[in-house]
Amino acid sequence: MTKVTCDSGVSLDGFSAGPDQTRENPLGKGGERMHRWMFEQPEANKAEREAIVQAGAFIMGRHMFCPDRGEWDLDWHGWWGADPPYHAPVFVLGHREREPLEMEGGTTFHFVTDGIEAAMERAKEAAGDRTVSIAGGASTVQQYLRAGLIDELRLHIAPVILGSGERLLDGVGDLKLEQLKVTSSELVTHITYRVG
Amino acid sequence: MTKVTCDSGVSLDGFSAGPDQTRENPLGKGGERMHRWMFEQPEANKAEREAIVQAGAFIMGRHMFCPDRGEWDLDWHGWWGADPPYHAPVFVLGHREREPLEMEGGTTFHFVTDGIEAAMERAKEAAGDRTVSIAGGASTVQQYLRAGLIDELRLHIAPVILGSGERLLDGVGDLKLEQLKVTSSELVTHITYRVG
Repeated sequence: MTKVTCDSGVSLDGFSAGPDQTRENPLGKGGERMHRWMFEQPEANKAEREAIVQAGAFIMGRHMFCPDRGEWDLDWHGWWGADPPYHAPVFVLGHREREPLEMEGGTTFHFVTDGIEAAMERAKEAAGDRTVSIAGGASTVQQYLRAGLIDELRLHIAPVILGSGERLLDGVGDLKLEQLKVTSSELVTHITYRVG
Repeated sequence: MTKVTCDSGVSLDGFSAGPDQTRENPLGKGGERMHRWMFEQPEANKAEREAIVQAGAFIMGRHMFCPDRGEWDLDWHGWWGADPPYHAPVFVLGHREREPLEMEGGTTFHFVTDGIEAAMERAKEAAGDRTVSIAGGASTVQQYLRAGLIDELRLHIAPVILGSGERLLDGVGDLKLEQLKVTSSELVTHITYRVG
């Protein structure tokens, strides 16, 4: 059975993005401070960084793809540059049919309009014997948690208070969580939970 | 200088107590699940348990002392039994003058009506060269964080989703946090932050 994981950065007060997300600032105001560990301590967090992108397929919400317009802006190719870090198929949950968008390095964005379960089926098929990763944002994570479709939640808790923005774990129901693994460097605590 | 610490249990979604706190259920609905690590894995979490109660004086809010009536119920002696776990002076922030309440084992509840800074002064004097600990609840922690009066925040993050209740870190402003230490057992992740 394909394992489904979800990695998310989160502030100590529970936000996965700050307020005022735009395509210029997709993490919202202050949100980039949550990810300092990735860029400033890459070696100390090597295993966790590699685990995030080793999935065989990804699923993301339309506003993670384009914060202010979703999949509707056909000129928009994502905010990751020509060679996004996924190097695998990425299924974008949307409302509008759109041709797949092939990027450099093996990333292809596929736009899925028939719901989260259909997207999961397609992602599992694409992933083969590798994992499927829910890439965000918060509302996508919440939908998959509520549907019981995530096996492992891996949070990367930064020593940052955002004060407002998108709360990662609102409205997810009464999840049963088992804490599997804790690691840390100075800028982050990584915790892996088994869900359900 | 006296160090001021704050220990708080917190659910993964950021609540330090569940909804519907009463004197019969002071942690609110489901709140006791956050503290399983203390009772079910006392040995694995020995150092953290001891650190919580080793302060020379404590400060708590009136609703932590008595959730539904604060310090107004003169027949109420707290919900910790005859020998509360503090074994030190506990300063309760309140609105009403009340005689000190001496319990067994060295715990005395003092009722302070002239604000958080006055309570801090009295606690520091009582603590001598030991630490002062902010014991909760959430609004008391928030007031002291906003006032810049806490040096060390020690969170005990449980693999539990409460969904509602009292959020620990709402409205605390833009705290500067430095992650000092991370430890864990299966039922909890302990993280210590230096504040400011």
